[in-house]
Amino acid sequence: MPTPDVPPTAVLLDLDGTLVDSVYPHVIAWHEALAAAGHTVAMAAIHSGIGMGSDRLLPWLLGGHVDDAQAISDDHKQRFLDRADHLVPTTGANALLEDLERREVPFLISTSAGTTEREALLAALGRSDLPITGADDVASSKPAPDLLIAARAEIEGEVGSVIMVGDAPWDAMAATRAGMDAIAVRCGGFGDDTLRGAGASRIVDAPGDLIGTL
Amino acid sequence: MPTPDVPPTAVLLDLDGTLVDSVYPHVIAWHEALAAAGHTVAMAAIHSGIGMGSDRLLPWLLGGHVDDAQAISDDHKQRFLDRADHLVPTTGANALLEDLERREVPFLISTSAGTTEREALLAALGRSDLPITGADDVASSKPAPDLLIAARAEIEGEVGSVIMVGDAPWDAMAATRAGMDAIAVRCGGFGDDTLRGAGASRIVDAPGDLIGTL
Repeated sequence: MPTPDVPPTAVLLDLDGTLVDSVYPHVIAWHEALAAAGHTVAMAAIHSGIGMGSDRLLPWLLGGHVDDAQAISDDHKQRFLDRADHLVPTTGANALLEDLERREVPFLISTSAGTTEREALLAALGRSDLPITGADDVASSKPAPDLLIAARAEIEGEVGSVIMVGDAPWDAMAATRAGMDAIAVRCGGFGDDTLRGAGASRIVDAPGDLIGTL
Repeated sequence: MPTPDVPPTAVLLDLDGTLVDSVYPHVIAWHEALAAAGHTVAMAAIHSGIGMGSDRLLPWLLGGHVDDAQAISDDHKQRFLDRADHLVPTTGANALLEDLERREVPFLISTSAGTTEREALLAALGRSDLPITGADDVASSKPAPDLLIAARAEIEGEVGSVIMVGDAPWDAMAATRAGMDAIAVRCGGFGDDTLRGAGASRIVDAPGDLIGTL
């Protein structure tokens, strides 16, 4: 057990794509919403942008200001929620959470998902009692570090260093900018070269591979 | 123009995922079909297997013989076809085909897709007049070279070397085993390290990037 002189390492966990296998449904939902608005965007390109702030995604994909961004985002959200019944946890997600709880590792789920999406993701996980914080009052979305810096401030008790676990390169970039160690899980479908290039210091297949190691 | 002494280089093109942006819909369709049969498989793992012969995919994902493989495959096919209205060509796919036609480069589309899926893919492409060959009478599916060797034998006129264009590592492996040069397109969402490791000698974003170069 940590002594009072050595504050424990805390863990921040991304939710969407990291604890729930939701990246591919997001790709499909964005592709359909963009197509409905008259924009043809390659699915692999959409995949590359999943995990950055949704306010950044459309300008990034379409190359500048997007007049109908709010309507496309709303349509994406609805299409994603329409498929929420198919969402399942990533491999070992719940087992990792139980491992952290059992070993009394301070942890907090940090998500930029809106209220309705967050509820759908937690329902897929089958947990409604998890420590979780969101993107309210955060000035700049991932890959900016703001969300993670705000989350770190919310972790109860004294903590030392912070490890961030996420599936997207945008998570690893945000963590590195926030001065945290970034661990990546491959379950979002991002390549090792991409994750490593974004700053991930360790890459595993899925949350279950982190049991006993955080 | 090539002289009679120097047979032209011919091009074999994969259809599913290479000319049509179909990899992500396949991932979703397989995930749903597997879930309906009681198998939870990570979407990123399914993605990794897209492009190998569908007879190989389920044993590869589930680790051995699968009793209900035919039922799962049929269910996948139906779920994929149910979403066929959303299929669109990959970036520059039709422009590349027109480029090959205009420059009289011998080419043939080589696909292991079944009849109904092939029709849906060609409909998404908006072309029904393309030279195309399938997997009939092929002993072993990709990454075995059989499909590509059979396709090479079907190209009309005398040809010299053959270039294969595909989106999946399984395409590049099959091409390399068939003694062909493998070019990979990133539009299937596979990472450069994966594609290069499978034997791709050149990697571009999408078919449109190959215009004038084949």
